[in-house]
Amino acid sequence: SRTYRIAAIAGDGIGKEVLPEGIRVVQAAAAKFGLSIEFTHFDWASCDYYLDHGRMMPDDWFETLKGFDAIFFGAVGWPDKVPDHISLWGSLIKFRREFDQYVNLRPVRLLPGVPCPLAGRKPGDIDFFVVRENTEGEYSSVGGRMFEGTEREFVLQEAVFTRHGVDRILKFAFELAQSRPRRKLTAATKSNGISISMPYWDERVAEMGKAYPEVAWDKQHIDILSARFVMQPDRFDVVVASNLFGDILSDLGPACTGTMGLAASANLNPERRFPSLFEPVHGSAPDIYGRQIANPVAMIWSGAMMLDFLGNGDAAFTAAHDAIMAAIETVLADGPRTPDVGGTARTGEVGQAIAAAL
Amino acid sequence: SRTYRIAAIAGDGIGKEVLPEGIRVVQAAAAKFGLSIEFTHFDWASCDYYLDHGRMMPDDWFETLKGFDAIFFGAVGWPDKVPDHISLWGSLIKFRREFDQYVNLRPVRLLPGVPCPLAGRKPGDIDFFVVRENTEGEYSSVGGRMFEGTEREFVLQEAVFTRHGVDRILKFAFELAQSRPRRKLTAATKSNGISISMPYWDERVAEMGKAYPEVAWDKQHIDILSARFVMQPDRFDVVVASNLFGDILSDLGPACTGTMGLAASANLNPERRFPSLFEPVHGSAPDIYGRQIANPVAMIWSGAMMLDFLGNGDAAFTAAHDAIMAAIETVLADGPRTPDVGGTARTGEVGQAIAAAL
Ligand SMILES: CC(C)[C@H](C(=O)O)[C@@H](O)C(=O)O
Ligand SMILES: CC(C)[C@H](C(=O)O)[C@@H](O)C(=O)O
Repeated sequence: SRTYRIAAIAGDGIGKEVLPEGIRVVQAAAAKFGLSIEFTHFDWASCDYYLDHGRMMPDDWFETLKGFDAIFFGAVGWPDKVPDHISLWGSLIKFRREFDQYVNLRPVRLLPGVPCPLAGRKPGDIDFFVVRENTEGEYSSVGGRMFEGTEREFVLQEAVFTRHGVDRILKFAFELAQSRPRRKLTAATKSNGISISMPYWDERVAEMGKAYPEVAWDKQHIDILSARFVMQPDRFDVVVASNLFGDILSDLGPACTGTMGLAASANLNPERRFPSLFEPVHGSAPDIYGRQIANPVAMIWSGAMMLDFLGNGDAAFTAAHDAIMAAIETVLADGPRTPDVGGTARTGEVGQAIAAAL
Repeated sequence: SRTYRIAAIAGDGIGKEVLPEGIRVVQAAAAKFGLSIEFTHFDWASCDYYLDHGRMMPDDWFETLKGFDAIFFGAVGWPDKVPDHISLWGSLIKFRREFDQYVNLRPVRLLPGVPCPLAGRKPGDIDFFVVRENTEGEYSSVGGRMFEGTEREFVLQEAVFTRHGVDRILKFAFELAQSRPRRKLTAATKSNGISISMPYWDERVAEMGKAYPEVAWDKQHIDILSARFVMQPDRFDVVVASNLFGDILSDLGPACTGTMGLAASANLNPERRFPSLFEPVHGSAPDIYGRQIANPVAMIWSGAMMLDFLGNGDAAFTAAHDAIMAAIETVLADGPRTPDVGGTARTGEVGQAIAAAL
């Protein structure tokens, strides 16, 4: 089979510590299952690059990346060097939008060996997906400031919901729910308070629901939905949400299953017109960078998701994905573990152990 | 001392079950501490009123209510009868906005006797306030729909942040933090993703922080902040947030301390130009209405907050507030308790027990 070309972008902070472990494990799985995966490294899309060049990425970033099969991405952001909205809108958010990675798929799963902050929950109890819209909604670049610097100053920020954007993410989520044993879907909303965009979202959910009569769906306001992630996380199967609500729920879900250090994600262009991007949900974490205590599992799990997506049903790729997941479970259960999951191991030791467990 | 006149509005669903218990306990405390509190009941601001009259409230609602000292409010909403955005924007959100109740103050506290969904947390570990902006932000009425009914359809929803609105909520929150032993303040933000309004919010936080050098403040993005409510709830002292973020955090906080059935809130006009409103955070809960299993503690606690605010430092009112809180703690610890906190008692029994414990 052919060689798959992956752009590897470490970014900032612990992105630089976990990416090598992700690559190590993906390479090990590729070797074992006879896949040809080739990584090309880029040092831009980082705050250091910004300090040198006055921009996060070279002008030809789109041309450079668009021929790759995927982007394997660490984390971006170092607020003491570059304000977050500049570093993120100049890199990650550009990728999502310009490569039309409109699905942000984020598993929430309680794994064996991971101390759970919720009382009385055991592995298997929590196992769902957050499906997050990834290109529009509350993350818009439309708006501005008036009467700047005076007492009358105000700021407008537009949220943008298009039928095109809303329907395609709902379709993806309903398809996913349909393919799972429980066939349940929960749509996050806030139509009681946010009275223009969210009632529209609800309308489109109801409309899409008609096409999936086998899926049992409901809608829940984001406030009580967040509360239920803590109180009844076993209720969820597929949760579909706008860009902002998905962002919140996909940090909250992993928190309820132990640690941000396990949270993987796939930013997908399902039509494969552009490269998809795979990254841990945790950020660059400047506060712990340099100590080699970052948990590499989120990055490695994202690597498994990447293989799964690249393979698109091919048996060897699926086997490689499954083997990585099994190796992650073995190492989380038996150690070595990083401090966030109760161990004392360093980032590299955990990566090596997972590669070895393959 | 004078008679305080309170408008009592039950609203819908369990609002009608818990409000009488709130009144019962406030009256008992008033009798004990020699306060004169007089309740006047209104049956509007309910979905049944809407079905009869085509609007949530009579046209002269503002004139009718503005002379009261406070509004004691159950809950509004019955989506099978009236869409939520119509019932809420026609009542609660109108009160907040037109009576300029710009502070929504919501305590988060782990009380003795309440089963905590977080592992290993005990009473005293979690004790903080969410201070929510209550009149602007993401809850705006500005926006609309274009190309309706076609494939090109889209919706815009404006978020509105004014210097006036942002500064006054920040000032309230910093003052509150300054008055507490730990003197810590956390500002919820999302300036890495929401790139126009949230950087402005951050700027105003930094500016306000200069006036409170004794307050140790930081800002945290709403995604990781939500995660920390689960992972490290003991870190928080005062959390200040925009309308939407405050809405989410003030359901999530109570979930982490056991149940929505305890979550009280005060919608304050601190200048006392208009009546303030006191209500439980839980909604009308149509799913459990009629079974008398709703927990009245959130309503009763809101009543205690009302007395505290009305008294404005007066010793008898403060004593009445403290006595209600002590009675709540006694009954939560010893029972009777409603099912959400592990008991089998009915709403009225709990209300009676708290009144008796006074
Ligand atoms: C009912 C709803 C409009 C309201 C809000 O979002 O403000 C409620 O959730 C609350 O928190 O008071
Ligand atoms: C870094 C930030 C812009 C980003 C987001 O909000 O999308 C992150 O929190 C995530 O969830 O991927």
